[in-house]
Amino acid sequence: MEYFPAPLEKLVEQFARLPGIGGKSAQRLAFYVLGLPEAEAKEFADAILDAKKSVTCCPVCQNFTAGGLCPICASPKRDGSVICVVADPRDVAAIERAREYNGRYHVLHGVISPMNHVGPDDLAIKSLVERVASGEVKEVIMATNPDTEGEATAMYIARLLKPFDVRVTRLAYGIPVGGHLEFADDATLMRALEGRREI
Amino acid sequence: MEYFPAPLEKLVEQFARLPGIGGKSAQRLAFYVLGLPEAEAKEFADAILDAKKSVTCCPVCQNFTAGGLCPICASPKRDGSVICVVADPRDVAAIERAREYNGRYHVLHGVISPMNHVGPDDLAIKSLVERVASGEVKEVIMATNPDTEGEATAMYIARLLKPFDVRVTRLAYGIPVGGHLEFADDATLMRALEGRREI
Repeated sequence: MEYFPAPLEKLVEQFARLPGIGGKSAQRLAFYVLGLPEAEAKEFADAILDAKKSVTCCPVCQNFTAGGLCPICASPKRDGSVICVVADPRDVAAIERAREYNGRYHVLHGVISPMNHVGPDDLAIKSLVERVASGEVKEVIMATNPDTEGEATAMYIARLLKPFDVRVTRLAYGIPVGGHLEFADDATLMRALEGRREI
Repeated sequence: MEYFPAPLEKLVEQFARLPGIGGKSAQRLAFYVLGLPEAEAKEFADAILDAKKSVTCCPVCQNFTAGGLCPICASPKRDGSVICVVADPRDVAAIERAREYNGRYHVLHGVISPMNHVGPDDLAIKSLVERVASGEVKEVIMATNPDTEGEATAMYIARLLKPFDVRVTRLAYGIPVGGHLEFADDATLMRALEGRREI
């Protein structure tokens, strides 16, 4: 006995495939979309097709862009001698929000993860080495996440870039601004102590 | 400075409109869809359009159906003398899962809620009264949620159906099977005591 008509069941299934969406949530979302006016439901469907069709990776930094160079690679105001290496386009957005960094980026689209069968060749590492080899770059900031896989990826790339005349740096570890010492984990506190500076 | 290309930003916005999906989740979902193979993204978009186009309300019980009578109203095996009145098509699915009920349904598509400007005329109440007036129905089970609005809606409909020769019943209240007494709220315990039966 099916409880919902097939097209609705199918829509629930599609939502249930999304990360972090369980069966109940998928039902709620599918019912919500079904309740939308015709035009708005079409807008939703079009947004999916349109994003899929027109969003590509920047040929230089591999960040998402709507065709051609991304705005950051295309901007003459950004400092081309510094490259910040991140795992994901969302990390670019996070760093841009801080309004502190004026260099360029390189998006790896993942981290090295043997558990998930992701090796160096699955990431945008070769294109990074080529950018560094071209000679304009003076510093590469490794800004992968401070977890095991992010660390390993940063170490791996740092070693690859050794032969080139380039500084390879890592984001500072420490207690988060606005955080509470008592809630900081041991490893973070240790790193914060190690990295202490004179005031 | 925009962080994501416009079509991606638009997809994030569409996901952020869904109930229970915040900004961060919307980003995660949009990125996931962008990472899907072309064909699967298209399948998602098609599922939305298809559900919107081909799912209608059953002309008799108002439950969702893929055109024409719903499977339950169309089935000659279901007992047409009992109607279970629920607020939402999901409630039909929940009751069907219990595999206990063999009557038919009536879906109100909401409850009376002055706070949200939902009055009796916004719900499928008139069609319920017409079904009851036709004479075949012997019992109407009010299965709206046991909250204030669900109660009020059940009471309202029960009063409307008074003039007809029909039993109007309400789902039993009590402690949920598998639950713990110590976690039951006062109102539930009171109702469970009131409704106690000999064993």
